[in-house]
Amino acid sequence: MEAMRVTYRLDVEPASAAARAEELALEQTVEVPRIVVRDPFIADRIMGQVEDVSPDPEGGQRITVRYPVAATAHDPAQMMNVVFGNSSLHPDVECVDVELPDSLLEALRGPRFGVEGLRKIAGVHGRPLTCTTVKPMGQSPDALAGLFRIFARAGVDFIKDDHGLAEHSFCPFEERVRACVAAEADIFEETGHRSVYVPNLIGTPKTIFRQLDVAEALGARAVMVSPMLIGLPVFWEICQERASVPVLAHPAFGGAQRIRAEALFGRIFRAYGADAVIFVNSGSRFSPPEARCRRLAEYLTTPWGGVLPALPVPGGGIAVENAARIARQYGVDSMLLIGGNLQIEADRTAERCRAFVDAVATAGVD
Amino acid sequence: MEAMRVTYRLDVEPASAAARAEELALEQTVEVPRIVVRDPFIADRIMGQVEDVSPDPEGGQRITVRYPVAATAHDPAQMMNVVFGNSSLHPDVECVDVELPDSLLEALRGPRFGVEGLRKIAGVHGRPLTCTTVKPMGQSPDALAGLFRIFARAGVDFIKDDHGLAEHSFCPFEERVRACVAAEADIFEETGHRSVYVPNLIGTPKTIFRQLDVAEALGARAVMVSPMLIGLPVFWEICQERASVPVLAHPAFGGAQRIRAEALFGRIFRAYGADAVIFVNSGSRFSPPEARCRRLAEYLTTPWGGVLPALPVPGGGIAVENAARIARQYGVDSMLLIGGNLQIEADRTAERCRAFVDAVATAGVD
Repeated sequence: MEAMRVTYRLDVEPASAAARAEELALEQTVEVPRIVVRDPFIADRIMGQVEDVSPDPEGGQRITVRYPVAATAHDPAQMMNVVFGNSSLHPDVECVDVELPDSLLEALRGPRFGVEGLRKIAGVHGRPLTCTTVKPMGQSPDALAGLFRIFARAGVDFIKDDHGLAEHSFCPFEERVRACVAAEADIFEETGHRSVYVPNLIGTPKTIFRQLDVAEALGARAVMVSPMLIGLPVFWEICQERASVPVLAHPAFGGAQRIRAEALFGRIFRAYGADAVIFVNSGSRFSPPEARCRRLAEYLTTPWGGVLPALPVPGGGIAVENAARIARQYGVDSMLLIGGNLQIEADRTAERCRAFVDAVATAGVD
Repeated sequence: MEAMRVTYRLDVEPASAAARAEELALEQTVEVPRIVVRDPFIADRIMGQVEDVSPDPEGGQRITVRYPVAATAHDPAQMMNVVFGNSSLHPDVECVDVELPDSLLEALRGPRFGVEGLRKIAGVHGRPLTCTTVKPMGQSPDALAGLFRIFARAGVDFIKDDHGLAEHSFCPFEERVRACVAAEADIFEETGHRSVYVPNLIGTPKTIFRQLDVAEALGARAVMVSPMLIGLPVFWEICQERASVPVLAHPAFGGAQRIRAEALFGRIFRAYGADAVIFVNSGSRFSPPEARCRRLAEYLTTPWGGVLPALPVPGGGIAVENAARIARQYGVDSMLLIGGNLQIEADRTAERCRAFVDAVATAGVD
């Protein structure tokens, strides 16, 4: 019988680990004391079963729980409910990793474009990709499109909205997308290089589905969303049932989850359909351990059932001066995201941007 | 100029607190170094401003940041992005509380039914309400409806689905709702007491909006969702633009957020429109501090702009034997939720359920 395996780290003493693990397995499925489970179908096909309890090298106990896949209903919301619904309310639990059985991964489907699809759209092969952000929030559509032109002229591959660009009265979505898509076409005509503009979708389903339709109608060739902010099930529906262009995933509101970054951004985001996943890099203004970032990138790109690889996008405060090193660190199948650092010298944004593009192109990545 | 004020606790030394606070205010709005903000409109109308930095009695530093309301676009997704989007990725920050200006609270709207609306539907005034759960997951619609009959006959006010009941093949949503709504009507005819059946909505927007339509068409008089699992913006759209019945909010997947329970469940859930908010009670199988639970309940019920009060629903492992004490603790405007504990003695579920109902009715709450 197919099962989803989830590992957790419990902050408990060894003596109480087995009992605590058993409680967790019940909490995540039947949510009643074991004594209430009198039906053998429920005990076999629904209830979580503890498979392993052992000391965790990082302290506490590492436990593995096996959940019959039937409990998830193969639904993107119910799956996360089984993974970490009520147990997220227990302060002694951290969700460490998730192993999805074939039928669940097939139901989720994963990236529709993935690394190769994004490369095709950008027309870039054999080197890491580059990415930057039109920001800060507060500018008009024309001002943002002006910034877009600087970045595109310098040859950046993907130019995305800041994840905080919403339906602001001073910068309505439709006007912004229209202005940036026009800028994309103009610079293509001027230079022969066609950057990919990536508008940010944000709001309730009604708003976000309208934004997606508008973006696609105006010719945007990719979009971005923050899955944890809009909700993982909405994210899934956008990827699998609504978008005809690739979807970049932004990590906003996701760090607060007591789920490891590599499990949430590396596995779940990919399984749900992100074509590219932005994450905060070690040594940036966020400081996750380097080993975790490496693992996250591996999770996104290693073979996984029939699911396409997704593009790792390290960001979160990379300086132009470090771009070549980070490109070498993540290798060819990656996209470097530099945002505010391109703009720190007034009137020298174009120069810094060209330095970024050159650094990645000449980093000697193979 | 209107502003949203958010307080955070930073795990930093006093000497670095002011600089770290300033970084956080930038991260949440302009997301560029201060030097890049050259436009006075952006500095005044968009950028976060640190208002206060002082030692936190719980350790670390307490900071208050003032965000111009314009940055939120009065949008339910973008608001949370400004509150805790990127900063949630910083391990040294906890979001402590949120103060919403009038225009934002008006845009969000809050509960449509609230405490009085729920009392009216249940026909109960002057005492705390009672609530239980049809579970465990894995049962057929008929089996769950059978359990419903036991609870309804005993006189429980609200009888909700377990939050893990999804579109399972062995228990499709429509069949379950049809069976339980029929049971509600049967027991009303039999006893003159009409319990309120509350189906659980879960899935992607497409699934969940269909479930809502089905539930309302079949005569369900309230529904439940888990806002953090389906996404806060979806939750808002359900409450404010789609549901014509009251909405109960379940805390699943919400504890992992490094946002205090009282801020997330007490303020945000109410502002977004929850008519009743389920939370894990102190002394339950979850153990939040009692003072925080009290504060959470206060946040739900105290006057707040023009927004209706929402019903506090303590749960998470209350034993029948403690019901009277907890009823006195939370007072008249509360609803006690007891789930699995009603079912721990085989074939005595009805008796335990009546004991629960009696305990609350005779708790001497005023």
